[in-house]
Amino acid sequence: MAAIGVCRLGKEKPVAGPIDAICRPLALAPCTSDVHTVWAGALGDRHNLILGHEGVGEVVEVGSLVKDFKVGDKVLIPAITPDWNSIEAQGGYAQHSGGMLSGWKFSNIKDGVFGEFFHVNDADGNLALLPDGMDLGVACMISDMIPTGVLGAEMADIQFGDKVVIIGIGPVGLCALSAAAIRGASEIYAVGSRPNCVQVAKDYGATEIINYKNGDIVAQVLELTNGYGADRVIIAGGDNDTFDQAVRMVHAAGKISNINYLGEGDYVKIPRVEWGVGMGHKQIIGGLMLGGRLRMEKYAALIQAGRLNPAKLITHVMHGFEKVEDALYLMKDKPSDLIKPVVIL
Amino acid sequence: MAAIGVCRLGKEKPVAGPIDAICRPLALAPCTSDVHTVWAGALGDRHNLILGHEGVGEVVEVGSLVKDFKVGDKVLIPAITPDWNSIEAQGGYAQHSGGMLSGWKFSNIKDGVFGEFFHVNDADGNLALLPDGMDLGVACMISDMIPTGVLGAEMADIQFGDKVVIIGIGPVGLCALSAAAIRGASEIYAVGSRPNCVQVAKDYGATEIINYKNGDIVAQVLELTNGYGADRVIIAGGDNDTFDQAVRMVHAAGKISNINYLGEGDYVKIPRVEWGVGMGHKQIIGGLMLGGRLRMEKYAALIQAGRLNPAKLITHVMHGFEKVEDALYLMKDKPSDLIKPVVIL
Amino acid sequence: MAAIGVCRLGKEKPVAGPIDAICRPLALAPCTSDVHTVWAGALGDRHNLILGHEGVGEVVEVGSLVKDFKVGDKVLIPAITPDWNSIEAQGGYAQHSGGMLSGWKFSNIKDGVFGEFFHVNDADGNLALLPDGMDLGVACMISDMIPTGVLGAEMADIQFGDKVVIIGIGPVGLCALSAAAIRGASEIYAVGSRPNCVQVAKDYGATEIINYKNGDIVAQVLELTNGYGADRVIIAGGDNDTFDQAVRMVHAAGKISNINYLGEGDYVKIPRVEWGVGMGHKQIIGGLMLGGRLRMEKYAALIQAGRLNPAKLITHVMHGFEKVEDALYLMKDKPSDLIKPVVIL
Amino acid sequence: MAAIGVCRLGKEKPVAGPIDAICRPLALAPCTSDVHTVWAGALGDRHNLILGHEGVGEVVEVGSLVKDFKVGDKVLIPAITPDWNSIEAQGGYAQHSGGMLSGWKFSNIKDGVFGEFFHVNDADGNLALLPDGMDLGVACMISDMIPTGVLGAEMADIQFGDKVVIIGIGPVGLCALSAAAIRGASEIYAVGSRPNCVQVAKDYGATEIINYKNGDIVAQVLELTNGYGADRVIIAGGDNDTFDQAVRMVHAAGKISNINYLGEGDYVKIPRVEWGVGMGHKQIIGGLMLGGRLRMEKYAALIQAGRLNPAKLITHVMHGFEKVEDALYLMKDKPSDLIKPVVIL
Repeated sequence: MAAIGVCRLGKEKPVAGPIDAICRPLALAPCTSDVHTVWAGALGDRHNLILGHEGVGEVVEVGSLVKDFKVGDKVLIPAITPDWNSIEAQGGYAQHSGGMLSGWKFSNIKDGVFGEFFHVNDADGNLALLPDGMDLGVACMISDMIPTGVLGAEMADIQFGDKVVIIGIGPVGLCALSAAAIRGASEIYAVGSRPNCVQVAKDYGATEIINYKNGDIVAQVLELTNGYGADRVIIAGGDNDTFDQAVRMVHAAGKISNINYLGEGDYVKIPRVEWGVGMGHKQIIGGLMLGGRLRMEKYAALIQAGRLNPAKLITHVMHGFEKVEDALYLMKDKPSDLIKPVVIL
Repeated sequence: MAAIGVCRLGKEKPVAGPIDAICRPLALAPCTSDVHTVWAGALGDRHNLILGHEGVGEVVEVGSLVKDFKVGDKVLIPAITPDWNSIEAQGGYAQHSGGMLSGWKFSNIKDGVFGEFFHVNDADGNLALLPDGMDLGVACMISDMIPTGVLGAEMADIQFGDKVVIIGIGPVGLCALSAAAIRGASEIYAVGSRPNCVQVAKDYGATEIINYKNGDIVAQVLELTNGYGADRVIIAGGDNDTFDQAVRMVHAAGKISNINYLGEGDYVKIPRVEWGVGMGHKQIIGGLMLGGRLRMEKYAALIQAGRLNPAKLITHVMHGFEKVEDALYLMKDKPSDLIKPVVIL
Repeated sequence: MAAIGVCRLGKEKPVAGPIDAICRPLALAPCTSDVHTVWAGALGDRHNLILGHEGVGEVVEVGSLVKDFKVGDKVLIPAITPDWNSIEAQGGYAQHSGGMLSGWKFSNIKDGVFGEFFHVNDADGNLALLPDGMDLGVACMISDMIPTGVLGAEMADIQFGDKVVIIGIGPVGLCALSAAAIRGASEIYAVGSRPNCVQVAKDYGATEIINYKNGDIVAQVLELTNGYGADRVIIAGGDNDTFDQAVRMVHAAGKISNINYLGEGDYVKIPRVEWGVGMGHKQIIGGLMLGGRLRMEKYAALIQAGRLNPAKLITHVMHGFEKVEDALYLMKDKPSDLIKPVVIL
Repeated sequence: MAAIGVCRLGKEKPVAGPIDAICRPLALAPCTSDVHTVWAGALGDRHNLILGHEGVGEVVEVGSLVKDFKVGDKVLIPAITPDWNSIEAQGGYAQHSGGMLSGWKFSNIKDGVFGEFFHVNDADGNLALLPDGMDLGVACMISDMIPTGVLGAEMADIQFGDKVVIIGIGPVGLCALSAAAIRGASEIYAVGSRPNCVQVAKDYGATEIINYKNGDIVAQVLELTNGYGADRVIIAGGDNDTFDQAVRMVHAAGKISNINYLGEGDYVKIPRVEWGVGMGHKQIIGGLMLGGRLRMEKYAALIQAGRLNPAKLITHVMHGFEKVEDALYLMKDKPSDLIKPVVIL
């Protein structure tokens, strides 16, 4: 754990294979999962790995077969960089290329982006050009926050006019909320309490704020829906027990979509009776963002068209590589005014 | 044709069967398809039928088996009132219950809503309560304009970040545009030229206006997309030949969704080469709004939550039943400042 | 419990409302869920209700608005008889019309089919003509066994060439297996051990039989798939803990479909790590058959075309109404040669 | 055109890039589209290209980055070899990677498989191991016939119990028919007349044969469906005008799926009225097989499990490379007993 850090650890500069690229970071952002990695031993042993999977870069080297990027290009970087020719990618779930979650390479099975340089596998498949004029901090939100939030809305399969609950309104939950609003949700019930987050939730389209402190959140959702239950629930916070609440607040044939990393405990528990004794058609799915170039281009277009506004997430902007560690500690300590920090290099 | 009109034509007041309701109109709106019916002999012979399928009503009689509505309720009325127990409805295409397009009953196979009273088949399945405080004119837009526009976006199967062309920005096209924006489109190219409509198109989220007068619209779309083509095309205007343009402006595996009534000509023509010699995965579908209660409740919720704002469509508000005919002539003559008229009774 | 029985309990003959029908049974079949109802107190209190939801009938009375059926018609009966104009049916989940599982009316919220006569709500929506020449016992399988099995395959979203596990090969599991084979599965691993069922499983397309007695079924599936895991799992037997096994035997982004009634216990448990810490895209859904006329017509057509062969399920044929109780006890006691009994009246 | 042939044309042996492979053919099959290429000038100018896209090979060289294949491996070859990291592949339409139809490389934009050696781009993504014991002729059917037929069934979106028309029962149509049968079709109406093909159609599950010579095929389909129309139509033969027939024989909200190469004419014509004046929900899509490794593995599994039996397609087996040209002429001249020839090397 101690070996995971934000500095280069005395490592050599990485080398690009024929289809890869080497980038240097232009901006970086720490993520809650970085905190898990460093302080909670997430996902098994990882030694001597550089941290980080959110950032914007400049290409400094490309392999001989890379067609669409050249040295000097400023590029968006996805947290998930699949092997696009894998059978998993061919099946539509590239994020699991090479095995469950194995499309997640940065700081997981290779060095992350918090280094002097970082390696991007399959550059043509996993980079996208930084759009002209896009703010670097905003661009960092395309690495993980936006695609994970969008995934939450996609897995929830929101239909026009659906009433959607968002449980957890940290940066990922807020992105899910914003995605739900531009996916056709009508009423959006945001479960959270931190004032900064509540304000952005409203700006993004929440029609009601549900505060844990005002009582059982299931009861609050049922009251808001006249006892009927919500159409969709997106889980972007909480723990294994949150699924119990989600099943209780969604009506028959509703859908539950999880984008929250479940860090501990043996089992997620689904309440048998409220799940319709196994026959209530309450679908449960949890997933990892897909990654890759196409989605980054799509999300950049959403930002450029004004449909998504991730600038509102960025509460702290720092400058200089040496501030990355401070930013990481911010994510760990979560001061009350924090949503998301970025570091501009 | 002369027998179709806005008055009662000496008819008896309709009678409610056990699951039906009789309503009197509170507000009415004429539709372009009413114009087709009266002046263009659309869809074969229809004699001595009262016109109209857009409106808001008050229940004046309910059948003995109606559970959810009572005399005095103010209700939304869908243009399409399916037989919900038909095999077509069970298959997911209720609008074609009893045969292609046969879910469309008002002024098609029975009297429409422009009468002193009108009959609603399957009241529990085809009415919805008027939400408290909803403007009557706005509520009229839930009969046909909004569901048809939403259908355009649904059939187009818009994915997050897609670039979408809307061909035709009359009231239905504008609703499709607004639906596309809240379905996840990034860039939206609106094809049209009337200043009022152009302004609403921008308000609803159009990122570019394409004017026929500035040259070939296919060329303009290709230029806007760097030669690649759009992801989706929604056809809400034009004629049979518009499909030729749509196929040329969409990229391989793109989707074309038609919500325009095709009033004349023998064939829609699909250009063979640009359609990928039959193998380009450019999907073509055209449909009729689904109808019924659930969708009206969903669309009302979208309006109440501020996601859709049909008030912008209403350029002319008249008062009194005797103005219905004037409103119909407005739709026929289309003065330059017209988008949609409503008549409040 | 004593009040639930196969005789008329001194009740009056039911009366048809305007859209309903009254039928007398021509053939009947007991179901495991009847056993749950009588001996396990399933789904809360149900008093003085006639049992049964599988059968074939003859129409003896129709309401005034019934269009497609007349007295004397021999008809298929679905176990689930939805209210087709409900908002749930309009949303695509008619089986939950009026609330979760409330499309299930027979012996649940009204008398079942094991009476001298029984009432069918919405006759046009919920009956289908018995095809000429179809065996009455076979026709009974269209009430519940086939639609529930088909649902298992549908929810599993089987793709061409998928490797599918069927856990439980009682009559419903066997129907799911047969449905998986005609949905495009390649290898089908059937988990079960009773010799009669194993033989039918092979006849229906199982490529491997997995016997609990030969060791951990998860390990057996992993071995058969070279450690990769199955693409789909259909659960048609077991208990809450079966989901734990299912999650462990399916690969990332695989799908788990439950059609098993979960009769006891508080929670279904999903193993956190094997579920990809909430991000493995292993979708979980459990549902109730849809019901209604269209599906019965579709399944009858599958039988007539020789795609499904439910005759193989019927191991015991009895004759006479007085044998219904014996048939029920057969389902309770499960002699080793039993798959499914039917009673011809 | 003259420059396209089955011999090496004096060319150098191709060279594998880092992710590619070079194979030598073990078995080859000519396709109707080869006939189009040679004699009908299909798809624009192609000069000095070796023909062929169906075959089985042995790996003779692999690039340095190829992980899953080595020299000496016997491999399945897909007709379509996409660039899997392209944005099109990331969007789910790999066959159009690099532009419409550009996933089709063999004998289209590079030499085909009818050479001494041939080049396979992205070996890990586009090869699959030949299963032990699979007949080489059967394995050739996995290149194009089976995936194209399966695509026909997939695009038709067949639901359990659907009535499906297959127009054209050459080898591709027969594969579509077989795929429809294992996708859940009930009645399958096969349109064709050649006795050999008719026999295989019945073996594959056709319930009726419709012969053009017995009158209008639309009328025949309507008669078989009691005037209602079919649920799905798969077009695997005919010409642009076949779509007119397909629209007329499918009911509202039915689906039309084309897998036939449309070789000439300017326009496919859709009949306006029968298409529901643009609102009948009769979906039209035509596509190219997807290609790549995963699908070949899936289809091989279907053959190994006995679900598909392409051996029935192979009417002529020849031996020796010098017979490839004879086989091609067979495809051109279509003797009455021909379905598909293969050449074993």
